Amino acid sequence: MGDNDEREIIQHRDDEEMEKTRTPRNHARSFLESVASSEKDGYSSTQSSHRLLAYSDALISIIATVMILPVAHTKFQDNEELKLSIQALLTTKVGVYLMTFLIVTVAWAAHIRLFQVIERIDDTLALLNLACMMLITFLPYTFSLMATFLNNTLGILLFCACVMLIGLIQALIVLYGFSHPFLLSDQIQMSENQAYYKRRILEVIMRVPIMCLFASVFSAIFIQVSYIILAIVIFLPYIAQCLKWIRSKAIGGQVEDSPDSVPFYTYHPSEPLSKERVEAFSDGVYAIVATLLILDICEDNVPDPSVVKKEFDNNLVAALQEYGPEYLAYFGSFATIGLLWFVHHSLFLHVTKATRLMGLFNTFSLAFVGGLPLAYQLTHEFPRGSRNELEAVQISCVIIFFAGLFQLAMWVTALFTERETLHPYVRYGGREHAFMLAKLSLYPCVALGTFVFTCVLSRFSTSIFHMMEIGVPFAFLVLRLLVRVVLVLLRWLFCPARNDLDSVPVEEEDSQLPINDIVT
Amino acid sequence: MGDNDEREIIQHRDDEEMEKTRTPRNHARSFLESVASSEKDGYSSTQSSHRLLAYSDALISIIATVMILPVAHTKFQDNEELKLSIQALLTTKVGVYLMTFLIVTVAWAAHIRLFQVIERIDDTLALLNLACMMLITFLPYTFSLMATFLNNTLGILLFCACVMLIGLIQALIVLYGFSHPFLLSDQIQMSENQAYYKRRILEVIMRVPIMCLFASVFSAIFIQVSYIILAIVIFLPYIAQCLKWIRSKAIGGQVEDSPDSVPFYTYHPSEPLSKERVEAFSDGVYAIVATLLILDICEDNVPDPSVVKKEFDNNLVAALQEYGPEYLAYFGSFATIGLLWFVHHSLFLHVTKATRLMGLFNTFSLAFVGGLPLAYQLTHEFPRGSRNELEAVQISCVIIFFAGLFQLAMWVTALFTERETLHPYVRYGGREHAFMLAKLSLYPCVALGTFVFTCVLSRFSTSIFHMMEIGVPFAFLVLRLLVRVVLVLLRWLFCPARNDLDSVPVEEEDSQLPINDIVT
Repeated sequence: MGDNDEREIIQHRDDEEMEKTRTPRNHARSFLESVASSEKDGYSSTQSSHRLLAYSDALISIIATVMILPVAHTKFQDNEELKLSIQALLTTKVGVYLMTFLIVTVAWAAHIRLFQVIERIDDTLALLNLACMMLITFLPYTFSLMATFLNNTLGILLFCACVMLIGLIQALIVLYGFSHPFLLSDQIQMSENQAYYKRRILEVIMRVPIMCLFASVFSAIFIQVSYIILAIVIFLPYIAQCLKWIRSKAIGGQVEDSPDSVPFYTYHPSEPLSKERVEAFSDGVYAIVATLLILDICEDNVPDPSVVKKEFDNNLVAALQEYGPEYLAYFGSFATIGLLWFVHHSLFLHVTKATRLMGLFNTFSLAFVGGLPLAYQLTHEFPRGSRNELEAVQISCVIIFFAGLFQLAMWVTALFTERETLHPYVRYGGREHAFMLAKLSLYPCVALGTFVFTCVLSRFSTSIFHMMEIGVPFAFLVLRLLVRVVLVLLRWLFCPARNDLDSVPVEEEDSQLPINDIVT
Repeated sequence: MGDNDEREIIQHRDDEEMEKTRTPRNHARSFLESVASSEKDGYSSTQSSHRLLAYSDALISIIATVMILPVAHTKFQDNEELKLSIQALLTTKVGVYLMTFLIVTVAWAAHIRLFQVIERIDDTLALLNLACMMLITFLPYTFSLMATFLNNTLGILLFCACVMLIGLIQALIVLYGFSHPFLLSDQIQMSENQAYYKRRILEVIMRVPIMCLFASVFSAIFIQVSYIILAIVIFLPYIAQCLKWIRSKAIGGQVEDSPDSVPFYTYHPSEPLSKERVEAFSDGVYAIVATLLILDICEDNVPDPSVVKKEFDNNLVAALQEYGPEYLAYFGSFATIGLLWFVHHSLFLHVTKATRLMGLFNTFSLAFVGGLPLAYQLTHEFPRGSRNELEAVQISCVIIFFAGLFQLAMWVTALFTERETLHPYVRYGGREHAFMLAKLSLYPCVALGTFVFTCVLSRFSTSIFHMMEIGVPFAFLVLRLLVRVVLVLLRWLFCPARNDLDSVPVEEEDSQLPINDIVT
């Protein structure tokens, strides 16, 4: 037995050796040997961070999204006009929801950048990360406290304290990582000036907590200044990124490659986000939104046995017929969320890298997706034929329209930098390109069309709206066929005069390969 | 531009070619060539199913867990004894929660097996899978309807209809997969008798829907028979698996390798579950449980401005002090969930493969983890010093104890088949083994200890309980040190007489490598 084990341990060591030589980690190996023997525990004290990051993504995405629930669970009085109550709602709860979403997303982006530097973890780092997560999940509460009591300093103090603690823990993670260099990314491990990196990364991390420190100090003197500082903290990265991108497009090209961007690659703000983590985060949002719907159904729509006995004479079917609109609303909303996920999934199949601007549009799109439980709540709450019903459908259309539009914006952004961000097969031209465009524009078009319908027709009901929602998936199945037919038609129209085709570049460049397959 | 594009498309084709040759998919290639030209769209119509499965796992895990909310949101009257209300609760709501969890897990296991056969997806499969997900998320509602109206056939009919529809969609997926063979797993693609596989898989899939058909037919005649049939559907796989495992251990060994298990490998019920999907599912449960807590805080514990003005004289701090126990309960519960995740994470680092029995224990452990929001709700609901407070702590201890115990059971099960399921480094012996055991036994021990304390001391309060919960993470940091000290002590005690050490195999076999590092 002992003999056997010994052989296995040796074999395992061989495996380890092989792994080490397969990847260029010779430098890491020398670090491993130089650290104290207590760190030589083998593979289990150093782990790939993949699952930790997936878990963090799930936590953060759920936290960002569940804040829609206080909005969705607001009780609307049907006797007053929906518009008025919605306006009152918009100013506070929806605002809180959107801001929370943005704040949590900023924290998430910082988390991504941190773990692009630290690529391997051990138990201590895992525990530190969990502490960080605990504080991030507490952020929405401090923020809603802040929003409810705008003139009270306590909310702002709590919020700043949380942010500062998160910054502190992240700094601890960085310090720990640099004191155990085999945890760092290979690029930093290999580099000569680790101390320089460390200082630089700590500077970037501590920027936000220090601004929060100022904000909390100012809150005692002049509370408006605190809010301005916090707004700068949240929005500045986004605005700076937008401006930079617009400028680079206007001037044309290589502004991004400033001389110091290469050495700072692993902590540069404009560095692309990890595609895996963007996907994991988006999946989390779509999943939680889909399940919030059924949660409402399960909590509210199981009739009380005594009520069924009294009011419906023990006829369960009659009792459940009352909930008919809810079921329809549920299936309609689920279909919409599922298909928006499907479009997102298709989009990211073609994307090789997510730039910051694409990440920003993704965040906006997800924020609107997170609003879908509100749309669900509104569209089944009002009696048929009321004026509110029409407005509920309109609000739903607006939410779906923007969720789809920002997905489309991601695609357009990707096309602007297609050499870096897109798979060659879907760049301008190619049938896949046309099909992707059709998929992406389906939801904005349907939502816009429905909105126009509700303005023209006064008899448009939520039931029709939900039936439409359920019908859209079949449109997706028909879409591929439609795109093909349109492409063939276009080709047939324009093919005789191939040379003056600047107006329809999309289909033309594509014709080299795929269309021939159809025609022949 | 056109020229450029052409070159890129060719380059992409080369890449594809390389990928094809790198993996042994020559047979798949010939299939690709044999199908209609409309299927030759290239990489985008055939996709790796990774993200689809991760999304499905997230959906299913959240659905399984959110059903705890109706339980946790039950209002308890403090004037009556907690025990009575808990007993009434146990018989219905907790039962519904646990059964829903098991049912959803069965659906999830079927989903895993299905997508072990179909390894690549296209748009149609993605849409079919979404339809399947929609029905799975609807299952908990039909089930709670069934549980509320035990003597009404409607609930059972709805439930059976859902299950039959899911089976139908899964059969469609299989038929679609076999008609586009490049979507299937390589093993089936290469095999000669695909038709045989297809029939066999369809048989396995249709078994449950057919039983549900019988159940729905019997519900009209003799409703008890329906329930028995449904119970068989849900529990039989688990019981059969348990019995098989016990028998194989009792008789000793190779019962599992029945002659027909090899050809059916990809759809054999005792086939190990995909480790990635077990991890993804568990992460989903831990993430949603952690966030359900903060959701409660955000919805209930933001004081109303008018109340603060009237009752607390605009003193927000005083108003928030009312919620002190909630905050403590939140941080304590979050720490517990985070650390249970951490233990799970450490455990699965050492596991190379998850057997069905391990999957079963994992499900049980997760079902108790899902009960933690109930523990949170109970431990902050009652005034200090009441008899109910003590019972709330006891219930929390029971939940944590079983969540930890089933994790330990997974580890023990893995040790029984360590050659297949564990990394060589952590098999019997090795310091990592001892450390893992210490990690796993920490929560059961703490929970048991606390339970005993509550029985002995009458002054034990929830605050102390939550402080303990927050303190446990530090125990984890100390644990590694402690294990080392104990190992060194044991070695020092037993080392002079190395030959009669059968009683302490754990540390002894380990001494060959790691301990020497410490001693020298």
